[in-house]
Amino acid sequence: MNWDTFKQYFVYLHQLKISLDTSKVFFKEHFFQSMQSKIVRAFNEMDALEKGTIANPDEKRMVGHYWLRNFQLAPKQDINIVLHDNWLKIHAFADKVLNQEIQGANGPFKTLLCVGIGGSALGPQLLSDALDRKPKGLRPMFIDNTDPDGISRVLKKLNKHLGQTLVLITSKSGGTPEPRNGLMEVRAAFEKQNVPFNKHAVAITCEGSKLDEMAKQEEWLARFPMWDWVGGRTSLFSNVGLLPAALQNFDISAMVQGATEMDILTRNTEVSKNPAMMLALSWYACTEGCGKKNMVVLPYKDSLVLFPKYLQQLIMESLGKKLALDGRSVYQGITVYGNKGSTDQHAYIQQLRDGLDDSFVTFLEVQVPHNVSGVQVEPGFTSGDFLEGFLLGTRAALTEVGRPSITITLKHLNAQSLGALVALFERAVGFYASFVRINAYNQPGVEAGKKAASAFLDLQKRILNCLTEHKGHSMSAEEVAKTLDMSESTEDVFKLLEYLAANKRILRTKLLPLTQSTYSIRRKQSCE
Amino acid sequence: MNWDTFKQYFVYLHQLKISLDTSKVFFKEHFFQSMQSKIVRAFNEMDALEKGTIANPDEKRMVGHYWLRNFQLAPKQDINIVLHDNWLKIHAFADKVLNQEIQGANGPFKTLLCVGIGGSALGPQLLSDALDRKPKGLRPMFIDNTDPDGISRVLKKLNKHLGQTLVLITSKSGGTPEPRNGLMEVRAAFEKQNVPFNKHAVAITCEGSKLDEMAKQEEWLARFPMWDWVGGRTSLFSNVGLLPAALQNFDISAMVQGATEMDILTRNTEVSKNPAMMLALSWYACTEGCGKKNMVVLPYKDSLVLFPKYLQQLIMESLGKKLALDGRSVYQGITVYGNKGSTDQHAYIQQLRDGLDDSFVTFLEVQVPHNVSGVQVEPGFTSGDFLEGFLLGTRAALTEVGRPSITITLKHLNAQSLGALVALFERAVGFYASFVRINAYNQPGVEAGKKAASAFLDLQKRILNCLTEHKGHSMSAEEVAKTLDMSESTEDVFKLLEYLAANKRILRTKLLPLTQSTYSIRRKQSCE
Repeated sequence: MNWDTFKQYFVYLHQLKISLDTSKVFFKEHFFQSMQSKIVRAFNEMDALEKGTIANPDEKRMVGHYWLRNFQLAPKQDINIVLHDNWLKIHAFADKVLNQEIQGANGPFKTLLCVGIGGSALGPQLLSDALDRKPKGLRPMFIDNTDPDGISRVLKKLNKHLGQTLVLITSKSGGTPEPRNGLMEVRAAFEKQNVPFNKHAVAITCEGSKLDEMAKQEEWLARFPMWDWVGGRTSLFSNVGLLPAALQNFDISAMVQGATEMDILTRNTEVSKNPAMMLALSWYACTEGCGKKNMVVLPYKDSLVLFPKYLQQLIMESLGKKLALDGRSVYQGITVYGNKGSTDQHAYIQQLRDGLDDSFVTFLEVQVPHNVSGVQVEPGFTSGDFLEGFLLGTRAALTEVGRPSITITLKHLNAQSLGALVALFERAVGFYASFVRINAYNQPGVEAGKKAASAFLDLQKRILNCLTEHKGHSMSAEEVAKTLDMSESTEDVFKLLEYLAANKRILRTKLLPLTQSTYSIRRKQSCE
Repeated sequence: MNWDTFKQYFVYLHQLKISLDTSKVFFKEHFFQSMQSKIVRAFNEMDALEKGTIANPDEKRMVGHYWLRNFQLAPKQDINIVLHDNWLKIHAFADKVLNQEIQGANGPFKTLLCVGIGGSALGPQLLSDALDRKPKGLRPMFIDNTDPDGISRVLKKLNKHLGQTLVLITSKSGGTPEPRNGLMEVRAAFEKQNVPFNKHAVAITCEGSKLDEMAKQEEWLARFPMWDWVGGRTSLFSNVGLLPAALQNFDISAMVQGATEMDILTRNTEVSKNPAMMLALSWYACTEGCGKKNMVVLPYKDSLVLFPKYLQQLIMESLGKKLALDGRSVYQGITVYGNKGSTDQHAYIQQLRDGLDDSFVTFLEVQVPHNVSGVQVEPGFTSGDFLEGFLLGTRAALTEVGRPSITITLKHLNAQSLGALVALFERAVGFYASFVRINAYNQPGVEAGKKAASAFLDLQKRILNCLTEHKGHSMSAEEVAKTLDMSESTEDVFKLLEYLAANKRILRTKLLPLTQSTYSIRRKQSCE
């Protein structure tokens, strides 16, 4: 690699001690020239977005996650005030909990149980894992799915500690099934132990939502707002991320300051000095603006193992869209995955270096470890030296065979740099979405998924009704489907019959092939 | 979806209560016909492999992971005997630990610290996470990297428990840096507390390796063999997986029995009844035999969240190859990623359903949860019903837009079904590798990565020597590189100078642009 090329594509942000190296993207000649009008438009659109334009046209919403770290930026005075008041409220509440002014039924709160899904889970999970535990901070646990075994595993661990557990229920509408189900299960566990749930529960939700109403009526400990102008995947700096962070005693001011600084630096219209623009351009160059290559995110730091997952959500949910802004079908997106180095070098990196040429890597380097043991694993070398060697070695090997990579370097991993990192990627996603003309802020596929699921729940009910009506008879999947007038969906009926039979909610006479089995209602219906 | 098509592509293994549905792969007409000769060859090559042919020609090794669950299968009598003795030895050792006949310095062993990387980490991690904790079983922890912060995080948690911690060091050669570094760090922690390490340590390694010699000399608690005919990514049924499983009191006999049964079922040359062959054919159909689509693995079960990572290693490290068996450059592979449903529906599945059409999904359904609370989250519905609804809903939505998927259904998730599942994929990988004519059992890219890393460690030493020789002078990256006669690698020198300066092992005079900074040796060199 040519030193001059490196210097040309190396952006060092001395304010944050973060650098971005895109010299190994192998930009083609004239690439920047060819992108010029797109770049100008992206800056303009981002500017308009930050000023409060309806940047999410499908949902007719403003997109305000940048205001969360700079209240002055909010386009309306009332949002500014709300944000300011909310900031004080977070601090006040967290202080009371950490200083034990507010306590649980059995004493000071020790554990924080976060119930939420999607952006409401991944952001807080990332923070908890990335940052070292702080004195006084509550120990975090998460329920992020509607899997009975997963919920039970968490509740078992909490079993003796419910009386000192603070529960955060995060759900924009209160209607999303996963957090609603989590709430129902957790509440039942509290009731079973006669611990008053409302004295342990906090709602993070839109004002006036079902969840908000419930929390108000039942006099929960506190209610914190969500806003329709903040999407789940960009909600880390809203109550969704800040409240659990504050309750773990993380330095949320530093986190916000890091993001604010990065926001300033990434508004710079001098392209070569703007790391978010350089990142978005790198993605465009690597994927040819149509997702041709997968983005592999590789942090060389155990505690950042969730960062690839976080970016997977941020990038794929934002960019993975069928329709362009003008309504054309474009099927856009960039596939993102990754775990951590050097561990992954002993796994899938075999393919990245040697096999299928379908990816570009984003290396995440953290220069200084927080905890050094002083052990020399070989004379003169620490464990960390090996980690650095593996990162540079893998990168060199990719470069050698012409496979592109990007390197982001943090001096330290802490609340400030993590905040900055998230802000960097948020803006890069916005720029890229502008390049490829899609709405980065809706998620029609997710909404459609919810509907499809509810159709299956409805079908389950109809199947049970059908078997109840035909009590005493044993019916095949084909017969049930025919009776329900949905022979074209016999397979769906079969799948649910098998599910219900496996769970002993109906009886099955098993025949081979299995598809000829017959089913009947049990005498006593149970849903356990 | 047509019911007849479903029935045609639905394989139910009544022995294991596992089914495979490939009806949504949308096989083209004549596909099976066109694959006929490849299928026959794949069966023949697998048969030869199982009989002990040199199936890993680059490394001139046999490939024996199928023998691990059926000792009779081993092509040589001595291997058969070794396997048999080893099985007894695992049981004897685990029994002694679990019955507290062997104890730690401070009492019965409570915690199991596994130190290993790649296959030596992911397999045991998968087992520990997938299966419920068992009474008497040790609590597992893992060191799977050379990140000082990651190691420190684990050691901090263990701090007061070292005297009751059993340490497994797993490394084929003993020379792989990550487990070696982990060993050094863990041993230092024991020494710091004056807990005799050798009375807590077990080596899993090849006989005669460096690690084996050390363990023998220092009189560690026990030594268990690794064999050169078992690759790391297929080592779950060797001591790498079985020993930690036994020490957690998992039912390793059931695990082996599940795999053995699956092995029998997947030797069936009747293609439509052989789930491993149907899986391999599905991959070929979806990726056109050249990795055209990514495999997204989506278990709807929290405790299987590591399974996609496990498959990522198994499949990408096996199939991601530059060279075909005949030496041609083919750049093969299939990209694999995924986390868990329904959580991921609130993230990247937006793209899978709606955006870029670059993937096929493998759904993993577990019909019966182990732990049901009895809570009705809506009248008549459990949390688990919603999980099932989400799986079926997402699948239906993909099918609706013509996006392929595969569904694997387990009645229960337990040691038996998990063993069967791993065996299913192991054989599918073997079949697929035969289709595309590559060696699935070597990993030249991983070996190359180790070499590249060691070159950077060497460079680090040379840089420190250079600055030491020029004590009192402050040199730029360009000057250091020139002095070392490697101006073409000035960037590498710069990266390492910055790393060393950030860690205060050299002094930096920071200038902007950063690339003009100068560096000098500290008076006292330290590697902390």
